[in-house]
Parts: sequence; C-alpha cells; structure tokens
Amino acid sequence: NENFDLKEHPHSRLNILTGDWILVSPHRTKRPWQGKVEATQADQRPPYDPICYLCPGNKRADGSENPEYKASYVFTNDYSSLLLNTPDGGLNDEELLVANSQRGICRVISFSPRHDLTLPEMETADIRKVVDVWQTEYQDLATYPWIKHIQIFENKGDIMGCSNPHPHGQIWAQNSIPVEVAKETQQQKAYFEQKGRSLLGDYLQLELKKQERIIFENEHFAVLVPFWAVWPYEAMIMSKRHITSLLYFTDDEKTALADAIKRLTVRYDNMFETSFPYSAGMHQSPVNMGDHPYWHWHMHFYPPLLRSATVKKFMVGYEMLANPQRDITAEFAAEKLRNLSEVHYKTKG
Amino acid sequence: NENFDLKEHPHSRLNILTGDWILVSPHRTKRPWQGKVEATQADQRPPYDPICYLCPGNKRADGSENPEYKASYVFTNDYSSLLLNTPDGGLNDEELLVANSQRGICRVISFSPRHDLTLPEMETADIRKVVDVWQTEYQDLATYPWIKHIQIFENKGDIMGCSNPHPHGQIWAQNSIPVEVAKETQQQKAYFEQKGRSLLGDYLQLELKKQERIIFENEHFAVLVPFWAVWPYEAMIMSKRHITSLLYFTDDEKTALADAIKRLTVRYDNMFETSFPYSAGMHQSPVNMGDHPYWHWHMHFYPPLLRSATVKKFMVGYEMLANPQRDITAEFAAEKLRNLSEVHYKTKG
Ligand SMILES: O=P(O)(O)O[C@H]1O[C@H](CO)[C@@H](O)[C@H](O)[C@H]1O
Ligand SMILES: O=P(O)(O)O[C@H]1O[C@H](CO)[C@@H](O)[C@H](O)[C@H]1O
Repeated sequence: NENFDLKEHPHSRLNILTGDWILVSPHRTKRPWQGKVEATQADQRPPYDPICYLCPGNKRADGSENPEYKASYVFTNDYSSLLLNTPDGGLNDEELLVANSQRGICRVISFSPRHDLTLPEMETADIRKVVDVWQTEYQDLATYPWIKHIQIFENKGDIMGCSNPHPHGQIWAQNSIPVEVAKETQQQKAYFEQKGRSLLGDYLQLELKKQERIIFENEHFAVLVPFWAVWPYEAMIMSKRHITSLLYFTDDEKTALADAIKRLTVRYDNMFETSFPYSAGMHQSPVNMGDHPYWHWHMHFYPPLLRSATVKKFMVGYEMLANPQRDITAEFAAEKLRNLSEVHYKTKG
Repeated sequence: NENFDLKEHPHSRLNILTGDWILVSPHRTKRPWQGKVEATQADQRPPYDPICYLCPGNKRADGSENPEYKASYVFTNDYSSLLLNTPDGGLNDEELLVANSQRGICRVISFSPRHDLTLPEMETADIRKVVDVWQTEYQDLATYPWIKHIQIFENKGDIMGCSNPHPHGQIWAQNSIPVEVAKETQQQKAYFEQKGRSLLGDYLQLELKKQERIIFENEHFAVLVPFWAVWPYEAMIMSKRHITSLLYFTDDEKTALADAIKRLTVRYDNMFETSFPYSAGMHQSPVNMGDHPYWHWHMHFYPPLLRSATVKKFMVGYEMLANPQRDITAEFAAEKLRNLSEVHYKTKG
C-alpha cells in the first residue's frame, strides 16, 4: 500500500538478531507527561572518595584492600550472582518444575582510579586500556573449560541499577548460554546455513548503503541505531570485519573500538547535557563449544531516557505482558545522534 | 547430586509458559545497597482532583468532558499507541529490514470515580464491577473481525510508568499476536498436542499438591508465585477451571476473581505498608482465529519492589543482554506473601 509510511503509521519491526518483533508508534510523541520524573543526577563527584569500595587504596566488603592501581582494576565481585563452587544438579518434576544448577564467575572492572570520570569523560587512550582488560579477562575466563559464555557489560547511572557511582563494568561468565545470546546464536546460524553469508555482515552492508540509521563510522567500526531498536536512543557498535569475538581484535581494531565508544558516549552525554544512563554490553561467540563462524561481534547500548534528563521510557504493562513498544522512530533517533557534537559539554569553553 | 539445593545454590529455572530460562541467586540477599532509592509515594490523595483528566465531570485532552460516572468509565485513549485507520502495508528489504503495519484500538478504564482508591482499597463488590467491564470490553472489541489479540492490563504507581495517579487500567487490542502471547500460545499448544492435556491445568494440580508456592485460593482461583517468577514478588492468578478467556467466566467466577484480586493486592500493600507498584495483566486466547483449546486464562502481577518501599529490583545490564536474574527464591516470596494480613494497613484501627 502506497499510503503506508514508517515515519507516520504504527507498525511492527522484526529484530533479525532475536526473531522478536517490536511495536513502533511514530505518531505518539505528543503525549503529555504527568508521570514520574527522575531526579537529576549529581554531576560533580570528587576524583577520590574515601568511602567508595572501588577507589584505589580503599577497603572492600571482604576486608581486603584495593591496590594503588593506575589504570583499570579487576577483582571478583564480593556479591557474585554466580559462584565457582556450585554443585552440579537439577530438578525435573513432570517437565513442569525444571531447574539446573548454574556455575560461574562474576568480576568487576573499575575503569580507572578516578571516581569522577565516566567513559565519555576519559581519554580515548585510557578507554583503549579498558578494551585491553576486556580482552585479557575474556581470554583468561575462557581457559576454564566448563565456561560457555562470558557477558561483558556496564550499568551506567543510578536509574540503570548501578550500585556505585565510581565508573565500572562487570563480567559474568557461566556454564550455560543465556537466553538472549541463545536467540542471537540461533538467528545468525539459521541465516548462515541458508545463505552461506553472515547475517550481520549483510545487515551492515545494507545499512552503510542506506546511511539513514548510521550515526558515524571509523575505519573498523560502524555505529548505528538498529532498525528494530527498542529503547529511544538505543545504538549498536558493529565491527566491519566479520569477527566472532573480541579475542581476535587487532591492535588497530582495539584503538578504533575505544574511539567508537568515546564518540558515541560523548554524543549521549551531549543529548540532554547530563551523564546519560545506559546499560551496554557485548554479544559474541560462546566459548569452549566449538566453532561459531556465523557469530559477528557487536555491542549494544540500551539507554532509557526519552525526552529529557528526567523523563525516561517505561517498559511496563503492555511491554512486559505483550510486546516492546517505542514512540520515536529509529531513523529520528539516528538523525538526532548524528547531529550532536563530539566535544563533551563539560569541556566546552 | 544430593548436595544441590534450590534454596542455597545458584540455578536456572524454566518458564514453561514462554520456554525461557531465568537465573536464581538465592545466596545473594546480603548484598548492600548504595544505589538508587525511590521517593516514597504520596499516600494521601483527594477523592476528587479538579485537574485530573480521569475524574468525573473533568475535561479531557481532546476537549470532551467526562460524564458524572458512578462505577467504571471507559474511553478511547487520547494518545493511543495503536490507531483504527492505519493503512495496510509493510516492508521487506532483503529479509533484513522487515516491518508490518499495525492497526488497533487503545482504551482506558477508570476503575472508579474516586481519585484516591486503588484496587486494594476498593470494595470487592466494586472490583467485581471492573471485572464486568473487562468482560464486556473484551466482547465488544472481539466483534471487530480483524482484531486478533486483546491485552487487558494495569500500570500501578509512578515507578511503573503510570502517567496519572487516578486508578485506571488499559486495553490494547490489535491485528496481530504480540511476542509474549505468541510464546505462551506455542508452549501451551506443544504440550497439549504431546500430552492431550492442558499445560497450566497440569501445572496447577502439581502446585496445589506441593502447596509451597501457593499464596491462597478461593473456590474458583488459585494465587501463587510461579516456579519461574522473575520479579521479586511476582504472582499469578489462575482459574481452576480450564477456561480459554474471560468471555466464559460465570457470575460466580467473576465474583471470585474480584475476591482474588482484592486479597492479593491487599497483601502487596501490606508488605512494605505502601501502595505497592506493579504492572498486571491477563493472558488468554487470541480472538477471531479459530479455536485455541489449550489456552488457560491467567493473570500476571509483576511488582518491582525488592527490599523495601524504596528499593526495587533493576532488570538492567545482565538481564537485558543475557538473562533475567532474581535474588530471593519463589518459595521465599510465596511464604512471605502467604503470611501477610488480608486487612489493608490503612484500615487497621
Ligand atoms: O499509556 P500510558 O499510561 O501513557 O504509558 C505507560 O504505559 C504504556 C503501556 O504499558 C507504556 O508504553 C508507557 O511507556 C508507560 O509510560
Ligand atoms: O551487580 P550490581 O551492580 O550490584 O547490580 C546491578 O546489576 C546487576 C546485573 O545487571 C543486576 O542484577 C542488579 O539488579 C543491578 O542492581
């Protein structure tokens, strides 16, 4: 139908990575807001906080003391969700009550000694050091033969459940494949078996041709709002080369990834001139499970803010029970992000 | 392994309704909280608010005026996410950019003229009137032959994205089957075809035998924390009779449903002596798509609070990228809910 227009009419879009659909309501941006408004976050923190359990030299919950570290610092989470010594076991009661033991390792990465510097405020060279730590941690965790999946992620900002403002990320490694990763594995595998090509490789070619959802690119990465984005300013960093995991990043690629993260997160902060909250994390090939040639490394950014530093998108009733829903289109969000400055608002003269 | 214990060790549980898994970390309740704390909600509201667009006699966004209604009042959402007149159409660009037009109707139900009375504070007889409205609305919307699914739900509390404190619910009806409902259809259908019995019927029998996750029951409904619950105090109301949708509720069943909703939500409010936020909604058979004999009506309650009126569970980084995760077990939550009073804390002498 010629009258149907993605910019104007309610529609659903397919997430090719998970096989799920999302509902888009482009006409719905005029909705007035009488609901919850978030407190604006304190934007000034000291470079060192004596009661922070991540700052150099401070005490941790287990009584140990952080070293006087100079770049990133990694340790096992004092309140790990997954543990190394969980006994094997399970339950299957008439196929109705089904459970399996889970074993794993949870680590925390303090991004830098500075209590006050989030990724967008760090130098690209220092972000590059974080990329190095991600790679060595991934490599180290993959040496446990029972570990099947390693999730690298960051919760930024207290509205994203971040329990300590000192900039840090997490790694949860475990003996099974989590739900979202299983879905992405299945979709990439099915496409590869059917077409003999990589799903995300083909997708990236199409997006680079169309340009309308591209935010920016550098030599090795493209940064875009995926066609099926759920969160208002959701974005994805994709490697241009077909790489199954960050294990295979070259030196140049690691520097380019740091550059991509810096430039995307600076734009985020500049959107509403606030420290932009998000959850972000990588998706890549499972480990110790043979070859996954169809896996294409990428990194998702899920930021909740919708209209301002204080009004976020709520994924609630309809979304929890039925289907994710968004108001602004992916194309609108990409254009907005594309046009934002790459100079952080705090450093503007 | 005999050492493996669901009460103690990290494990995953299967959601038989969706086929997804959730991660449970029972040992993790001692985690200290330095993160976001919610403002306590104003618990006193006037019975009538002159600027509320849901109160009787007040003006709405489209310029119309609410009648002086005495029980519930239903109208079309002034900011509907789905619209009646969306043209047909779609997009399929190399199977990578895939979209379909969506058509639908969004309605709002003000539960009562009283601006200050949430469901747990309403009389059971008045909740029964809301159940009647749900049934007639469902019946009415199903007369549009192109409508395939009708989602009845409520967002309660501003932390659940509720944009007006006047107690109200919503109905989103549309020309396709939303993702969550499609998953539940598939799981119930597969079980029915394999075993010749209803998945949720069998599950309910097993839970009634075990009792450990049952919160309470009345003649026609059981209220329990599902084995695979994700949210800390998630609950499910299940009809004892195998009923595919609320269209087939008898008079007695409608009264019993009102009773079940009242008693569950009063316990919720009593948990932390606060108006307990949640998103709740029914799942039932699609409409105008032939018979779905395997569908068993039920209603989910997804409340976010974890430890107090101000500390909620965040479904963020690991949860968004990998897998839902919870700390307390379903059995612990059920026991806590079972032992709470059915007299609302505000009415205690
Ligand atoms: O419809 P409302 O109350 O304006 O909005 C609320 O419920 C909707 C349906 O769950 C969500 O899409 C919105 O994010 C939420 O704020
Ligand atoms: O690990 P933290 O920072 O204590 O906790 C945070 O991240 C976790 C992983 O996404 C979530 O399970 C928690 O709900 C959230 O508050």
